[in-house]
Amino acid sequence: MELYTFINFGGIIAFAASGTMAAMRKDLDIFGLIVIALVTSVGGGTIRDMLIGHFPVRWIMDSSIILLIISVAMITVVFRSRIVHLDKTLTFFDSLGLGFFALRGIQEGIAVQLNTPSCIILGTITACFGGVIRDILLNEIPALFRTGQLYATVCILGGILFFVLQKMQLSAGLIDVITILFIFGVRTLAIKKNISLPKINKM
Amino acid sequence: MELYTFINFGGIIAFAASGTMAAMRKDLDIFGLIVIALVTSVGGGTIRDMLIGHFPVRWIMDSSIILLIISVAMITVVFRSRIVHLDKTLTFFDSLGLGFFALRGIQEGIAVQLNTPSCIILGTITACFGGVIRDILLNEIPALFRTGQLYATVCILGGILFFVLQKMQLSAGLIDVITILFIFGVRTLAIKKNISLPKINKM
Amino acid sequence: MELYTFINFGGIIAFAASGTMAAMRKDLDIFGLIVIALVTSVGGGTIRDMLIGHFPVRWIMDSSIILLIISVAMITVVFRSRIVHLDKTLTFFDSLGLGFFALRGIQEGIAVQLNTPSCIILGTITACFGGVIRDILLNEIPALFRTGQLYATVCILGGILFFVLQKMQLSAGLIDVITILFIFGVRTLAIKKNISLPKINKM
Repeated sequence: MELYTFINFGGIIAFAASGTMAAMRKDLDIFGLIVIALVTSVGGGTIRDMLIGHFPVRWIMDSSIILLIISVAMITVVFRSRIVHLDKTLTFFDSLGLGFFALRGIQEGIAVQLNTPSCIILGTITACFGGVIRDILLNEIPALFRTGQLYATVCILGGILFFVLQKMQLSAGLIDVITILFIFGVRTLAIKKNISLPKINKM
Repeated sequence: MELYTFINFGGIIAFAASGTMAAMRKDLDIFGLIVIALVTSVGGGTIRDMLIGHFPVRWIMDSSIILLIISVAMITVVFRSRIVHLDKTLTFFDSLGLGFFALRGIQEGIAVQLNTPSCIILGTITACFGGVIRDILLNEIPALFRTGQLYATVCILGGILFFVLQKMQLSAGLIDVITILFIFGVRTLAIKKNISLPKINKM
Repeated sequence: MELYTFINFGGIIAFAASGTMAAMRKDLDIFGLIVIALVTSVGGGTIRDMLIGHFPVRWIMDSSIILLIISVAMITVVFRSRIVHLDKTLTFFDSLGLGFFALRGIQEGIAVQLNTPSCIILGTITACFGGVIRDILLNEIPALFRTGQLYATVCILGGILFFVLQKMQLSAGLIDVITILFIFGVRTLAIKKNISLPKINKM
């Protein structure tokens, strides 16, 4: 539980910082930066909650998350010239957050008795769609659909692994840890080796 | 009922294929194509369910639809050079799907006791707003608002017809069939004759 | 109550007219204009209702609002060459509507027992995010995040004022009036003096 909270906050911080950095490239004012930071961090979970009908959506009940994200956005702005050196730390937490958020989505799907493909989709949405809303707001085609880099793909693979392990009747805690580490590991590897999905040749 | 299921699946297939083809023009990877196919097919119904408060939204409970859409996206990619010849078949199902989805939206609105204008709007959203989300994700002004071609307009007219027929106390089944055929017919005619709404001259 | 209804309708009319005018710059057909007018007016409240779980969302139950917005869009189109002279009237109602919608959002947040920061955010979303959806649909980076002009900022400040006044145990009616007038006043001042938030220098 303690570890989970730590990873969760690490993921939120990494997502908020990456959102702020993306927004700074687009000439937004400080309010715009904060909105993009919020949306990148909690957007995926918000869509998840809206799809399964969990209201009020979670972040809106939790002012600590909101204040954390606003603080991260402020800090990112103030230290923007130095934060590029934190690139590796951010990527580390981003990949860990990816695993954690995907797992959260899967568990929420199971809790409302969705079928297996939908649980995997819900995990992927939770982990990836904050970035999609960020890109829509910044008026770009979502990076998620373009660059590959196995961002969504590792969430889908991690989701499949989760249900395979469940079939093998491992303990719940062990399944969680393996799923997070798998997503984190494959994502880290994909970044290092620059692996991506094939693009489709046009007609 | 049998016929309904057939039309419903035909519409989903046509929407998924058209989404995939739109996405292929934009340099997306295979994951992006599948997301756009999903969104084009089930996006309108998802917004409808979110507006009236039907949770979990319908498609997420139904893995057969998800697998169908993914299959259609795959097939469209593989046979992309030949699918242009299927253009007429796709347009046929697209227009039929338009009628069917609009009717679904109207019926859902009636089921939660919305007033008549809202039912017509809900039908139009169900039929048309998957394409709107598709265009937003592909970073374009939604074609729905630009090209005319009586896409949304036929849904609105079909909705008005539905309530006129209901006032005339026809049987429910007959009203459904007439509404679908009307939307299908006018849409097909609009494509053939290239009829569109007037654009507004700028100031 | 009477006054509230008057301000509410004034705000809706101003938002619908501004949406229509923004859409006319983008070559949309008449249907597109109406959708943009609807979205600009009721979009913020729709996101609010979706976040807190109030279903069906409010506007869909209220055909008078829908018909009002459609009428405003029509009138704006017909009198488009003259409506530029109404600029000051529209800005007046737009600023008043801003205050009113922000207050509505705060009150809805309190009604579902959200914490104070979330209530303020909900007020800001109610007042500002119709314009955000409008800009997404028109394929632009939301003006809200760029121009400054203290649009969202006055809603946030107004929200803080609301809760300060509540701590001082003023009567509910008085708090409402002061909050609306504060938002209206600061917004009007910001437009006149052309005050805006600082932009962040890029790295």
